[in-house]
Amino acid sequence: MTLSKRIQEIFKRAPFIQELGVELVTLEIGECHTKLMIQPQHLQQNDFVHAGVVMTLADHTAGAAGESTLPEGQHVLTTEIKVHLMRPALGPELKCHAEVIRTGKNIVVVKATVTGIHHGKEKVLALAHVTLAAISV
Amino acid sequence: MTLSKRIQEIFKRAPFIQELGVELVTLEIGECHTKLMIQPQHLQQNDFVHAGVVMTLADHTAGAAGESTLPEGQHVLTTEIKVHLMRPALGPELKCHAEVIRTGKNIVVVKATVTGIHHGKEKVLALAHVTLAAISV
Amino acid sequence: MTLSKRIQEIFKRAPFIQELGVELVTLEIGECHTKLMIQPQHLQQNDFVHAGVVMTLADHTAGAAGESTLPEGQHVLTTEIKVHLMRPALGPELKCHAEVIRTGKNIVVVKATVTGIHHGKEKVLALAHVTLAAISV
Amino acid sequence: MTLSKRIQEIFKRAPFIQELGVELVTLEIGECHTKLMIQPQHLQQNDFVHAGVVMTLADHTAGAAGESTLPEGQHVLTTEIKVHLMRPALGPELKCHAEVIRTGKNIVVVKATVTGIHHGKEKVLALAHVTLAAISV
Repeated sequence: MTLSKRIQEIFKRAPFIQELGVELVTLEIGECHTKLMIQPQHLQQNDFVHAGVVMTLADHTAGAAGESTLPEGQHVLTTEIKVHLMRPALGPELKCHAEVIRTGKNIVVVKATVTGIHHGKEKVLALAHVTLAAISV
Repeated sequence: MTLSKRIQEIFKRAPFIQELGVELVTLEIGECHTKLMIQPQHLQQNDFVHAGVVMTLADHTAGAAGESTLPEGQHVLTTEIKVHLMRPALGPELKCHAEVIRTGKNIVVVKATVTGIHHGKEKVLALAHVTLAAISV
Repeated sequence: MTLSKRIQEIFKRAPFIQELGVELVTLEIGECHTKLMIQPQHLQQNDFVHAGVVMTLADHTAGAAGESTLPEGQHVLTTEIKVHLMRPALGPELKCHAEVIRTGKNIVVVKATVTGIHHGKEKVLALAHVTLAAISV
Repeated sequence: MTLSKRIQEIFKRAPFIQELGVELVTLEIGECHTKLMIQPQHLQQNDFVHAGVVMTLADHTAGAAGESTLPEGQHVLTTEIKVHLMRPALGPELKCHAEVIRTGKNIVVVKATVTGIHHGKEKVLALAHVTLAAISV
């Protein structure tokens, strides 16, 4: 299976990602871009996008970037993730860019940045650093 | 509005939390219990619950616990969150317990633990520490 | 070499830990207690103990607890650490208690708590969660 | 007092930073460069620089960068810090570059990168994200 196919599967066959509406935009080895059109069900009580949506977008995009650096048959599992939420997220669209900053035999470290429109300008809304375990299933 | 009402609102009026199915179980000042029945749409490609679901549950429960320590009119906003995902999460149900470990004038620190059944026993699946900003809106 | 000897070496042969004055108090498998007498050189400009001292104490104690769960010949290396600094640290003494919360084949997750006297009472000053990589050198 | 003087004080009057040997290289508003010549007492049992040294360098440089964005009379206190340690650190010198990524009324978020020579090339050894509380003392 080509790398591109493998990663597309991570998006297509993940029900929570389908449900949320996260779309794969581009993928290269160690780097992944995604986007998400904001829907009313993504919001929290104050009309901002729920932190959980932002974190899910960051985590999944990071996972795809990380998995792209591993040989076929190996997968990633999020071990820990830290997210700084810097500005409230509004619609209409969030973008995420993940890039691998270190691939080891067992551990892959990925940075993911979520951007969106804030007061009319594209701004960084959240910054995540993710530790992925490389596993053979 | 009573504390209990204020917190119930955080659950009822947050579309993403309703959509996900997170239920408020009990609340005391500085402490909150929630649960979530796992549905097919919560899963990822490998049939485990998506990390995003676990993180959302932890974040929202932590937010409720944190907000319960603030005077009426003040709200919390997640500034940063770190989650250790220790075991893959399966159904049928996840529970979350959040407790405030430090309330300051501007910053509230909360610990949230997500538990579930793993190989027939109740186990800690994820451990989160959340920094909340206290804001007046 | 006995476990106790192996861990004592981690303290005796680490120049930075000797320099700082960190003392091993007790060790069991997966659990380690240490202490540090505060000296003037541990302080920062505002007379509080420097965050770097608190973090070093947490990191090293966590490493000892983590290494105690591995077979001889395997060592731990800190991959990432997060520390919540909850109260300013003063002397005369800091204590640290680290306990392993999850040991995997390649990754060990440890929680470390730093306590000290704050307004006359023993209080939690800092809470750390550490991801250690298990390596064979 | 000029900004430059205020920040120099943070280095000169912090005994732990003096003891360690951290030097301020340059400072602009929201950005700080430091360096540290590695000495034998900075090492751990395996001859790598102790994680505590790397974390202290990152934390203090981040604090200086953060404080430079605040009005005189306001200071920063580290609330939480996360450090990814990506490669073992060796001498002869570590450099740190910190830049503020978000300044709020009460919270300042700073990124700090520690670099050093690894297999003959300058490499990122550690990446830290720090949440600072802005306080008036």
